[in-house]
Formats: sequence, C-alpha cells, structure tokens
Amino acid sequence: MNEITFIETFLRENLEYTREKYRDRDAITVTSKTDATDLLTEVDLTLQKRAVDQILENFPGDTIVAEEGAYTKFPDDENVRCWVMDPIDGTSNFVRGMFPLFGISLAFAMGGESVAGGVLLPGTGDLMLAERGSGATLNGEPMRVSDIQTLAEARIDLDFSGLSDRKAILERASGIILGTGVLRCHGSAVCSIAQIATGHVDGYVHMSLNPWDYAASQLLVEESGGLATRHDGTPLKLFDNRKGVVISNGAVHDELLGKLRGG
Amino acid sequence: MNEITFIETFLRENLEYTREKYRDRDAITVTSKTDATDLLTEVDLTLQKRAVDQILENFPGDTIVAEEGAYTKFPDDENVRCWVMDPIDGTSNFVRGMFPLFGISLAFAMGGESVAGGVLLPGTGDLMLAERGSGATLNGEPMRVSDIQTLAEARIDLDFSGLSDRKAILERASGIILGTGVLRCHGSAVCSIAQIATGHVDGYVHMSLNPWDYAASQLLVEESGGLATRHDGTPLKLFDNRKGVVISNGAVHDELLGKLRGG
Repeated sequence: MNEITFIETFLRENLEYTREKYRDRDAITVTSKTDATDLLTEVDLTLQKRAVDQILENFPGDTIVAEEGAYTKFPDDENVRCWVMDPIDGTSNFVRGMFPLFGISLAFAMGGESVAGGVLLPGTGDLMLAERGSGATLNGEPMRVSDIQTLAEARIDLDFSGLSDRKAILERASGIILGTGVLRCHGSAVCSIAQIATGHVDGYVHMSLNPWDYAASQLLVEESGGLATRHDGTPLKLFDNRKGVVISNGAVHDELLGKLRGG
Repeated sequence: MNEITFIETFLRENLEYTREKYRDRDAITVTSKTDATDLLTEVDLTLQKRAVDQILENFPGDTIVAEEGAYTKFPDDENVRCWVMDPIDGTSNFVRGMFPLFGISLAFAMGGESVAGGVLLPGTGDLMLAERGSGATLNGEPMRVSDIQTLAEARIDLDFSGLSDRKAILERASGIILGTGVLRCHGSAVCSIAQIATGHVDGYVHMSLNPWDYAASQLLVEESGGLATRHDGTPLKLFDNRKGVVISNGAVHDELLGKLRGG
C-alpha cells in the first residue's frame, strides 16, 4: 500500500467510529493536559493508537510524530520517513458546543515537508486528500483556493489558542483584526486551513502551531494553489521548532504578512 | 393559536426548506447590503416573507420588526404587541464555509422585552423554545446554563462583526481576549447565545447588536438561568437604541463586565 492510499483508508475506516463517539460524547472520558481548557479524550487516544499500530505494521521503521503521549518528539534527522498526525484537532469543540468543528489529520513527510496528506471532517463527512505535485481533492473532486484579492473582502480565521498566546495576538495581529472583512475563530487549525484549500476561507493566522496541526492541511492548501509561510514570509517547515503560521489563498498573503509586520 | 405555538410551528415548518437551500446553496441568489461582507440571500427574504404573511394572518394588527427590507424600524411605542425576527442569522456562514453556523430566530415581545421566543439551528436540527416565566427547552427537554465560574475556565464567544466594530473591540475587549480560557468567533449571535442557554458556551460579547439578533436567544438564556445586560450592566432591552450586549451563564457575568470596564 502506498502512503496516500494508507491515509485515505485510515480516515475512511475511522469515520463511523468518530461520529458515533461524537453523538454519544457525554459518555466519553475527558481529561485535562496543561490546563483546564487543554483537553484529551479517549477518542484522541484510540485514533492515535490505531494509526500508530497500522503504520508500524505497514511501514516498519518509519518515524511517527503525533499530538498525544510519547509521540510529540520531533525526529533528529528530518530526512527520515515520518508520519505526522493529529487524531482530533479541535478536541475542545468535540467535547463542548453544538457544531462539530473538529478534524482528523494524517500526513506522510520526507525532508521536513509533507508529501502526502489527508483531512477528514467527521462532522460533515468531507474527506480531503493531496499528494505533493499531484493536486488535491475534496471527496474525489479537484479543489482550488478562492480568488479573493483583498483582506477587506476576505474571510480570515485567526485562532486565539490558549491564554499564553493572547498577548502576542494583540501585539502582532491587531492590524489583521482591524482590516479583515470577515473574522472567525473556530478553535481548530485543521478545520480552518482545510477550508482554505476548498476555497471557503481565504487565510489563517496562528501564533504557535505544532506540526501535527498543519502537516496535512498545509499540503492540501499548497496543492490547491495557496501558500504557507512563517510570519516573516520564510517557508513553513515541519520540524524547524518555529511557531508562527500564515496560510492563505496566495492572493491575500502579502497583505497578511504586512499586517503582522505592523503595516 | 398562542404565540409560542405559532413560533414553534413556523420554525418546524421551515426546517426542511432551509436545509434544502443550504445543501444546494451554490444555486441561491446572494446580494450585498452595506458592504461586500454584509450579505443577503433569497432564503433570508423568503423566510421573512413567510413569517410576515403568517403573523399578519394569525395576529392582525401586530407590529413586526425584522432584519431585512422595510421591517427594520423599531416601534414608536414599545408597549405594542411586536414580533422580532432574524430570518437567517449568520448569512455569511450560510453562503460560505463548510459548517452550518446559522440560525433562525423568532420572538414575540411586549413592553420592550421578549415573552416568547424560539431558535432553530437548521444545521443540527436543534429547536430551542422559551416563554417568559416558564423555562426553556431544547428539543422538548428542559435546558440549563453551565456552572462554569471563572473566565479562565470559560468559553466566551466574541463576535468581531463588521469592520466598523473592530476599533471598539480592541479598545474595550482586550481584557476579555487576554483572560478567557476558550475564545470563539462564529459570526452568528443567535448560534452563540442559544448555546449559552444549552450550557455549551458560557458568555457572549458584542459591540453593536440589533434586537433581531438577540430577541429570542436572550429569552432562551434568561429562562435557562443566565443573564443579559448592556456593557454597563443595565438591563438588555429590545428597543432602547443602544448597542453593546453581554449575555452569560450569570456566574461569569461580573467578570465580563469588569473586563469591559478595563478591570
């Protein structure tokens, strides 16, 4: 099985399980990680364990980086074959709120960048897949970023993340808050970035993402004609230990970078 | 037919129509109102016309205040029998984005406050109803606000609205941005406020709502044990021509008001 087929199969096979757990979420086990709003559920753990077991079985020797438990360490050598996973991005929304704003993200990377990736949105049933150089699809159909040209007309998703990011947001993102036509904060990087690939969102800004938050969805956007960088405009890599992220349809990218520089 | 029965019947009867239009939304007619991001669709207009026609038939002589067209004028005398409607709150989300973050809101008011109200979330199928003094229900079951006690543990929805509100948000809501555990901006007051009533959200802050944005959902929250005020803590009325709104589970209300005062 090649990597993109593995990703597609894994995501499809876990759609019904995740939906069932969401429907019956009052019964799931929830614990806190770093603080009261940083949550972990049995669903995150189960999905990650299933992926880890199946990767080790199908691709023995591959490295795995994932959000939970013992897998958060980055590879020493970024040239290894590496899988990057967020079992549930938007766990807080999975646990609370009436709208299913969460996604499952799985990518395969080499040389510090994703070469195959998939995002499943269990709440809507949408599946997005991409391979580097081969384009990206939404439910099997080619997808393309929007053609919105200015921030004043754009929808930008700006996630406020945990309390530790807030001062930086007010200092660095005020220009974006003042100048963007439609602002949203959904609390799931995967949901927001994947929607740039589909053309429903025009840009996404975050102060401190981890690679599992964007490994798959970055590739979806790039293969749909969009752009992904750090706040200073340099390439967005997976394992460089930097944090700020800007992903867009390409057309509004310079304007976003300018606002982050205080322009 | 009494008012709450009318509201429930109207919302139920329009669930399938609204869902169908959402599923086939690429085909609907969309126009802009004040600017490129202030949208109006044929669905807003159809739902409002249906409500107006049925109100005039069932309650002849009643006043109607609604978001679209000729109905935006407030009554000169707030003691009249008055219906307050937002046909689609979250039109921008109805038109764009993969998650159905919009709601239909219909309330009946006397003396400048709602006495019966209902919210339908077509995307999830959830129906919320309340009568003043009689409690509130979600799909027929009693509902209750959360018992979260502090902003650091709370989920607060802070809508950024249009460009004209942004400066005020940065000036007045920075303390909320800095101090709230989970921040969301979904771009639909009705969706956010209704979720305070169900206990999924702990508070909502907006700089400039119109009465149709909160007439029904405010009542849902109050009848579920929560609180609704202006930014200065005075009662939230429908037709006083003021704009700022704070609605919460009650427990975090003083902390929200303090942050808005710069505390």
